[in-house]
Amino acid sequence: MIHTFHIARPDKQLQPLLQDKIDNLTKPKGSLGRLEELALQLGLIQQSLSPTLQHPQNIIFAADHGITEEGISVSSRDVTWQQILNFLEGGAGINFLCRQHGFTLKVVDAGVDYDLPYERGIFNRKVRRGSRNFLYEAALTEEELEQCIARGAEVVRLCHEEGSNVLSFGEMGIGNTSPSSVWMHLMTGIPLEQCVGAGAGLDHAGIRHKYEVLSRAVANYRGDKSAQDIIRYFGGLEMAMTVGAMLQAAELRMVILVDGFIMTNCILAASRLYPEVLDYAVFAHQGDESGHKLLLDWLHVHPLLNLGLRLGEGSGAVCAFPIVDSAVRMLNEMDSFAQAKITKYF
Amino acid sequence: MIHTFHIARPDKQLQPLLQDKIDNLTKPKGSLGRLEELALQLGLIQQSLSPTLQHPQNIIFAADHGITEEGISVSSRDVTWQQILNFLEGGAGINFLCRQHGFTLKVVDAGVDYDLPYERGIFNRKVRRGSRNFLYEAALTEEELEQCIARGAEVVRLCHEEGSNVLSFGEMGIGNTSPSSVWMHLMTGIPLEQCVGAGAGLDHAGIRHKYEVLSRAVANYRGDKSAQDIIRYFGGLEMAMTVGAMLQAAELRMVILVDGFIMTNCILAASRLYPEVLDYAVFAHQGDESGHKLLLDWLHVHPLLNLGLRLGEGSGAVCAFPIVDSAVRMLNEMDSFAQAKITKYF
Repeated sequence: MIHTFHIARPDKQLQPLLQDKIDNLTKPKGSLGRLEELALQLGLIQQSLSPTLQHPQNIIFAADHGITEEGISVSSRDVTWQQILNFLEGGAGINFLCRQHGFTLKVVDAGVDYDLPYERGIFNRKVRRGSRNFLYEAALTEEELEQCIARGAEVVRLCHEEGSNVLSFGEMGIGNTSPSSVWMHLMTGIPLEQCVGAGAGLDHAGIRHKYEVLSRAVANYRGDKSAQDIIRYFGGLEMAMTVGAMLQAAELRMVILVDGFIMTNCILAASRLYPEVLDYAVFAHQGDESGHKLLLDWLHVHPLLNLGLRLGEGSGAVCAFPIVDSAVRMLNEMDSFAQAKITKYF
Repeated sequence: MIHTFHIARPDKQLQPLLQDKIDNLTKPKGSLGRLEELALQLGLIQQSLSPTLQHPQNIIFAADHGITEEGISVSSRDVTWQQILNFLEGGAGINFLCRQHGFTLKVVDAGVDYDLPYERGIFNRKVRRGSRNFLYEAALTEEELEQCIARGAEVVRLCHEEGSNVLSFGEMGIGNTSPSSVWMHLMTGIPLEQCVGAGAGLDHAGIRHKYEVLSRAVANYRGDKSAQDIIRYFGGLEMAMTVGAMLQAAELRMVILVDGFIMTNCILAASRLYPEVLDYAVFAHQGDESGHKLLLDWLHVHPLLNLGLRLGEGSGAVCAFPIVDSAVRMLNEMDSFAQAKITKYF
């Protein structure tokens, strides 16, 4: 890959001081559970005993997928662009969640097969009109992959310039659980059948057909099985762009909120290129797509929420934001035992 | 019990209309998971296709426990009143959570063994200075129990007059996992040993001692094992007051956010008196106290969050509020397929 990132692990020197601060807040030690873990992670990312969350943004990368020609999705391909227009109107699921939690929503056309109204605020980073059908050929060329990585990174740099230090990523792309399942299978070694699920609502026969199509695609694949080649061969454009975006976010020491099945595959792919990216990731939600729990277990991570969401769009990640915010507020707003003049609980 | 409540089950006539509204929002059917379940519950409680959440309040009932004489808690009894003063200063865990989520915090003295500064805004509903030691005698008299129920109900009526339609309940009372464990054991039949846990941080030997004390107390108990008698005999004052508060909230068709182990025991006890109360309950958080999961399973409920909190104070319930808010916003802010002119996903 031509584009390189410089991602540092957070310096752990601050850890004992952070832990000491957390342990001296007016509560039984450890009694704020996951909030305490998050506080430690965010303190290390920001190298601060008083981390803050600034200007959260949810970036939706959108694209179409050549593999939809094989009938692997319950939804019609037109839903990709239709739903993007719905984002602009403010009537989609992600819109109310962004309003509720103070997120700016950026919608990025990575490769939608439609002429979108960019004058209405959609970011035009289209690389091509949909990926190729990976049942027969590589979804992307080397050059297209590089464009995706670079453009995803560029959008994140824009957010950083706007003052953001926490981003969630979402996607809109009918058919994109299919490349996700293949990425997961090839990058983890988990049998393909366990990586394939219902997507937006396939029935049993539909899942079986999807599995058979993906099996044939994997059998046809002749690449070197490096992460870079898997990303390129199976696409999609919005997923490759998300990989670039996540890597850029980590380089800039931003907090990455990881949404559901597809976004977890993107951070998996990103971590195969740069393992350090995982230090910046907060796994937000265990989605309802059947392979997601397996993938989370494989990564040894436990998401903050498990609300049975399977909407995409970054919805699970944005839903989890108040919990991350609570962790930061715990560090910044709670008194220590000394300040409160309370007998220490232990 | 002298005080009676008139709790109606929500009329289910509206259910098909509510479900139809939910299913026609611009998302794959069912894809907002638990948010959709909550939307249905809240719509039925409020008998509205557009429910709202008004003036959320977290009420902390506080009291001391005679059983602390037996060394069943890791914390000193003084922590009860000290922590109440910390609530007034705004430096406790529940304070930042209430600020974050727009909750008013009411602290109610149900029976703290200390002269608190009521002029600073604590609600003085003290029934007595701590419950009696139930290892040797009933924690409360019949009259004290009745006072607890009535005063808890009165505080909730006040919140209702202030315009609230959603309440969370918390507690502060060193030692109160002990009566909770006994309530759970006697009301569910689950073996006492499985109902006893570490509280604020007992070690293995401490838990063993606590179990032995509670075993002897149960063996000494000669009551009729009715819910009313169990509540009275084992106390505590803040827990009995919470039972009255929850029943009043249900009578007034308010949403009840149920926090951790102790609050789950309170709604269990309330439901033994009036089963309809459960229709108004949203189980917010699975706490870290070992018996809590067992009790939730026994009730066949799945809390919204599992963040390993064991702080009490209503912290888990307040943390879950944004999810309940999301459910309401989903109903009120999302477009239908017809409004958005999108091909229906199925």
